[in-house]
Amino acid sequence: MPRVAVIGAGISGLTMSKMLVDYGIEFATFESSDRVGGNWAFGNPNGHSSAYRSLHIDTSKHQLSFKDFPMPDDYPDFPHHTQIKDYLDAYADAFDVRRHIEFENGVVSARRLDAADGGGWELDTQRTGTRRFDVLLVANGHHWDPRTAEFPGEFTGETIHSHAYIDPWTPLHLMDKRILVIGIGNSAADITVELSQKAMRNQVTLSTRSSAWIVPKLMYGKAADMNFRTTPHLPLSWQRKAMQMGQVMTASDPTLYGLPKPNHKFFEAHPTQSGELPLRLKSGDVTPKGDVVRLDGETVHFEDGTSADFDVIIYATGYNITFPFFDPDLISAPDNDIRLYKRVFKPGMDDLAFVGFAQATPTLFPFVECQTRMIAAWLVGRYAPPSIAEMERVIDEDTQRYTGHMVQRPRHTQQLDYFIYEHDIRVKEIPAGMVRADSAAR
Amino acid sequence: MPRVAVIGAGISGLTMSKMLVDYGIEFATFESSDRVGGNWAFGNPNGHSSAYRSLHIDTSKHQLSFKDFPMPDDYPDFPHHTQIKDYLDAYADAFDVRRHIEFENGVVSARRLDAADGGGWELDTQRTGTRRFDVLLVANGHHWDPRTAEFPGEFTGETIHSHAYIDPWTPLHLMDKRILVIGIGNSAADITVELSQKAMRNQVTLSTRSSAWIVPKLMYGKAADMNFRTTPHLPLSWQRKAMQMGQVMTASDPTLYGLPKPNHKFFEAHPTQSGELPLRLKSGDVTPKGDVVRLDGETVHFEDGTSADFDVIIYATGYNITFPFFDPDLISAPDNDIRLYKRVFKPGMDDLAFVGFAQATPTLFPFVECQTRMIAAWLVGRYAPPSIAEMERVIDEDTQRYTGHMVQRPRHTQQLDYFIYEHDIRVKEIPAGMVRADSAAR
Repeated sequence: MPRVAVIGAGISGLTMSKMLVDYGIEFATFESSDRVGGNWAFGNPNGHSSAYRSLHIDTSKHQLSFKDFPMPDDYPDFPHHTQIKDYLDAYADAFDVRRHIEFENGVVSARRLDAADGGGWELDTQRTGTRRFDVLLVANGHHWDPRTAEFPGEFTGETIHSHAYIDPWTPLHLMDKRILVIGIGNSAADITVELSQKAMRNQVTLSTRSSAWIVPKLMYGKAADMNFRTTPHLPLSWQRKAMQMGQVMTASDPTLYGLPKPNHKFFEAHPTQSGELPLRLKSGDVTPKGDVVRLDGETVHFEDGTSADFDVIIYATGYNITFPFFDPDLISAPDNDIRLYKRVFKPGMDDLAFVGFAQATPTLFPFVECQTRMIAAWLVGRYAPPSIAEMERVIDEDTQRYTGHMVQRPRHTQQLDYFIYEHDIRVKEIPAGMVRADSAAR
Repeated sequence: MPRVAVIGAGISGLTMSKMLVDYGIEFATFESSDRVGGNWAFGNPNGHSSAYRSLHIDTSKHQLSFKDFPMPDDYPDFPHHTQIKDYLDAYADAFDVRRHIEFENGVVSARRLDAADGGGWELDTQRTGTRRFDVLLVANGHHWDPRTAEFPGEFTGETIHSHAYIDPWTPLHLMDKRILVIGIGNSAADITVELSQKAMRNQVTLSTRSSAWIVPKLMYGKAADMNFRTTPHLPLSWQRKAMQMGQVMTASDPTLYGLPKPNHKFFEAHPTQSGELPLRLKSGDVTPKGDVVRLDGETVHFEDGTSADFDVIIYATGYNITFPFFDPDLISAPDNDIRLYKRVFKPGMDDLAFVGFAQATPTLFPFVECQTRMIAAWLVGRYAPPSIAEMERVIDEDTQRYTGHMVQRPRHTQQLDYFIYEHDIRVKEIPAGMVRADSAAR
């Protein structure tokens, strides 16, 4: 059995670790923080949580739960981040995962050794020096390294990224301010809603380049994501078409609220989930704007030719996929693009796997759970990926399937439909990989 | 022409005054404040505004505008109270109403003089002593005198009425607090939403006795009140039935969100309008409860047998109809019930009319405008109400029509459907009153 290292004990690393416990595989999980949960550990001392005080999960608990560990019955439909963290703690305890996690012992650098040196990986760790493993599982997350938009000119007011936003008083005092929020993801929507309530006495403008469809979290009194889901038994393109025909029922068209027309059709990319943002826009509490074209002192110029003065810009412009422990010549993800077979295997590196690197719709948790099932089977030799050439071919095919219909943007490169993916892995990929593993063993 | 006095320059008094200007009737409007707007004059120095900082009108501007003075095109669908105030100021200026208003000169008492003394009214005013008029128009509003619920026992925490609520820091510091909001009207919903956002770190419980249907302010991306309206050409009972059949589309059933079942059917009473409260309840930010049964120190006992401790109770339990200037033996409205013909005329008093005393659905503004049209016609002798006996009969009939289907509660006694009322006044009542006036004159 290989000695396995996992980088990170957030959702991806924790779920991976739990699966390794299930399989009885020897492993160590390296976590730079003193706690599990990563992004969902509000105020995480390692700085890797992007959670703000008011953050609730945007996916209902019905879709979010791990299959083998349902969320408690008394949880609300949309749990608060504190409840997600409690859930992850309970998960770690229930499967006795913690004893495999080396806390405050993150991986500083990871070097791949030549076959001549016996292969495997050499890891420099924060507390325990250099450690050697046969296989490396990368689960360091993709929602912690802020990406900022670049505009010509210079803004002289205060600037933060949504990653640093905690609440209206932390880290900046955001009352009685003229505030520009840039972005249209869930963080942008939540922060805009929070700061634009009249009690805060702010003037809030929301600027977006690509715009987005804005779907409610509730429809007909139920979590909206309970009302529909994709099926692997029909072509995804048909299902997108059907959703587009039903779009009017969701009132998700941002032009209804003065925002720009999206650069993609409904359901072609992760929508923004907010029942409140449309109301704020319709109440005049938020001024909608298109892209920023130029910064000049405290003035911001927009593409519609208007300009306005601001005290603060909040960049809710997403995150980079970053592997600070890898030599960028070995592995990196420029523009968040990294070619991975089934989002897991890097062709040509048979001792490396990635966990949790996709923007899965509706959500990450069960997607990761599904990936870890394949990875564990691979580690014990029951699953084998195909040849390098075949992997490259399938990567192209899958990229076309999940994102070929979209404008390419760093925000969208990782787009993936969970229900399609899960069916593909469970029904096709794992069985096929088992056949490949068997024939290789014979 | 009679000399006319108007009490109040809020929506009702201002609209009445504008119609008197139109008719060229000699009049004086007595206003205790230094400004027009009444309830919509946030921070009104006369203490009669119940507006909180975040208040937006719950009816879209499309339904709200006076027919002869549309809201500006650049107003949002749901204007903020500051915009409503600006609109009322512009209305006062456009029709040169202000020169008829005696500011800071409220009516302290109003005495009806015997016919032997020449009849009419003697008013004691704040600044200008006793004044005499032929006709009195009462427009002092019904949203300024807080009504509080009475429960057995005593609560030792802090208590305010929603009337006094301004924002989370005024008049009480409402952060890190255990808060009980009592009531289920729009104020209760708005205050609950504002205080329950996680940034405020409060624990908020919402308690209601009668419960209410909760309709969104937006449906299909448009102001919900643009999607339907009642028509005078079909029986109101049929229309209520149709709305009840479509109720599921509005997701307005409070039991979906853990609140008690309403004591009335959908559309039988003014619904609560909030897109946000259902979301807060589904996110676990607000704990729903039924009625309070007992107070004991900082503990509140609920009808479901549970209890919880609170720092603050906010009574969002509505308002009394109060006429502080009348001897209660002459005129009063116990339990908000006052028998008025077409909500305007008190049978037996032919020199008195009331303006704006109804909970009109969808909203007050055009309802008042409609009433003032009838009152002005009456003042110049073109309209006459029927005999006292006939008025009494019609009051019973109208009460049955508008509120007969409902549980009688102070909250509901004033319920009225504007579209039905307006059609009734315009098409039937004013023409009939003109015939009566003509035959009396002949």
